[in-house]
Amino acid sequence: MGDGAARLEGRPTLGSLARELGVSRQTVSNVLNNPELVTESTRRRVLAALEGTGYRPAPGRRVPHTQRPMAIALRLYPAGDGVNGTLMDRFTHRITEYAQQRGYRISLLSARDAADEVRLLSELHHDWAIDAAVLTDTYAGDPRPGLLVQRSIPFVAFGRPWGDEAAAHSWVDVDGRAGTLAATSHLRALGHTRIGYIGPEAPGVCDDRRSGWRDGVAGAGPDPEDLQEVVAFDTARVGAEAARRLQARGATALVCGSDTLAFGAVTALRRAGTTLPVIGFDDTPVARALGISSVAQPVEAAAQRLIDILLSEGPATRPRQVLLEPHLVLRNLEPFVS
Amino acid sequence: MGDGAARLEGRPTLGSLARELGVSRQTVSNVLNNPELVTESTRRRVLAALEGTGYRPAPGRRVPHTQRPMAIALRLYPAGDGVNGTLMDRFTHRITEYAQQRGYRISLLSARDAADEVRLLSELHHDWAIDAAVLTDTYAGDPRPGLLVQRSIPFVAFGRPWGDEAAAHSWVDVDGRAGTLAATSHLRALGHTRIGYIGPEAPGVCDDRRSGWRDGVAGAGPDPEDLQEVVAFDTARVGAEAARRLQARGATALVCGSDTLAFGAVTALRRAGTTLPVIGFDDTPVARALGISSVAQPVEAAAQRLIDILLSEGPATRPRQVLLEPHLVLRNLEPFVS
Repeated sequence: MGDGAARLEGRPTLGSLARELGVSRQTVSNVLNNPELVTESTRRRVLAALEGTGYRPAPGRRVPHTQRPMAIALRLYPAGDGVNGTLMDRFTHRITEYAQQRGYRISLLSARDAADEVRLLSELHHDWAIDAAVLTDTYAGDPRPGLLVQRSIPFVAFGRPWGDEAAAHSWVDVDGRAGTLAATSHLRALGHTRIGYIGPEAPGVCDDRRSGWRDGVAGAGPDPEDLQEVVAFDTARVGAEAARRLQARGATALVCGSDTLAFGAVTALRRAGTTLPVIGFDDTPVARALGISSVAQPVEAAAQRLIDILLSEGPATRPRQVLLEPHLVLRNLEPFVS
Repeated sequence: MGDGAARLEGRPTLGSLARELGVSRQTVSNVLNNPELVTESTRRRVLAALEGTGYRPAPGRRVPHTQRPMAIALRLYPAGDGVNGTLMDRFTHRITEYAQQRGYRISLLSARDAADEVRLLSELHHDWAIDAAVLTDTYAGDPRPGLLVQRSIPFVAFGRPWGDEAAAHSWVDVDGRAGTLAATSHLRALGHTRIGYIGPEAPGVCDDRRSGWRDGVAGAGPDPEDLQEVVAFDTARVGAEAARRLQARGATALVCGSDTLAFGAVTALRRAGTTLPVIGFDDTPVARALGISSVAQPVEAAAQRLIDILLSEGPATRPRQVLLEPHLVLRNLEPFVS
């Protein structure tokens, strides 16, 4: 495969293509949308000409009869080493199932970094191997949305364009801040005034979750900064160590930015013979097995909305931006083994 | 899409195609393999004729210049509710990465059952949307391998043709029996004579793992049947209950058919204030986080072997069958929180 990006510029339109072939715009449109209305020789001639160009209809208006793949690319990230990996597993499963119902397949790709992902998507799109892409794991300064818009590759992002308020592409995300705010508010309603937070600090998802806790503890009493454990890694061991420090500083309840951290915190506290209410994030199988309360993301709904938006978009549609609400799953904080 | 299966019978060969087109067999071969040796008009004529037939070269001999997708189908199963889901996550990631290195993409599909999977694979293969398939989660009485052979759809299975010794297709699997045997032997070497087993009973993978334990305890002393807990579900709660029963019957160590069961067992024993050596299966992130010993499957190596076999197969090659060895990961049985 060559430099797909360069070849993508100056793509022909239905009109320029019709002029080039000496047929009407309507004929080209019929070949793509109502092939039964044109003669076999016209159909073959127009499809052969299309072959050599970059022209293609919007993803939702694809014609199965052209025998082109109807595929949506999705980059697969390495399986995490923690407890949270199941979330993207659920997402991938649902997006595969729902895209298939709508006539599309999910085509996986593996990439070293954002530039590599964009390069691969450009090549695959140019070669007609994919029709569109779903981006996941967006971050502050993410170059991918801008590059894909520039290359006219249809896509929807699962994740907001953090820090880029002017971004004009479609995305679906889950309101993480609302989730940690609901968790913190629940603990305050139970009478807690010293609620600690364990989580990483980073622009985007991490800071968003942390801001929900910060808003939730505002006015509760002590300086929130004292009850915050900013951690570098999302591992159970890190969660365990942070929980012990927060307990020593007088925290009576904990909100965690992930179930991995919550899992470590709960295990450490139980080993120390105490139990504090702990609320995690992502409602993983491990949180369910250990009876840890958690914030649940509607990832299946997100997958479905992404596909709906992707397949309803055309050159004339406006970008759509959807923020879904998570919900709090409350569990007995005693372990299931009574 | 129509009934792909019916249309797949009587596929043309390179020879019959050449006769039909009035060109030599070598010319057809050149169009596919050395397009620079034929004129543009011949190339177009032969490719157009190929379009209307079911002919295609073996997956490993595909020509990128035909602009057809080079895709391998993989059915995605629902994310498990236990701890073990990460295994297939790792498999999917590695197979995507390695197939891509070899010029192929993994195309996901979702299916209700075996028949639905075969129907989808037949349609996608007929429509040139995929070149080959990888089957996973094989089971005793699995109809898929036979049906795919019948339909001439190239595939390799991750999993043995349980109970069908005569099956002549290619597969890669991990020797589960060797894994539980190594675990049991390790515990015997530590002096244990009453080693219990927790796992489901079912032809195929489950019975294979159980047989490793049974062979390992042979001659150790008590009747092995007394120290076996056949469970119906692979959940932590079930593992916890089974561990308590085995401890009451005098087991001094446990081998489990999954990390989910081992996780439940360890948690129950710790709650009861005791620790027995417990060895799980699959070396999941949860086993690592809790410090549980486990049998590790080389899933990345399996994914790679599957692709290598798939892309080296042709009409004349013999099926290859590869059984990989798992290895035992021993950990401190005390929890990581000291």
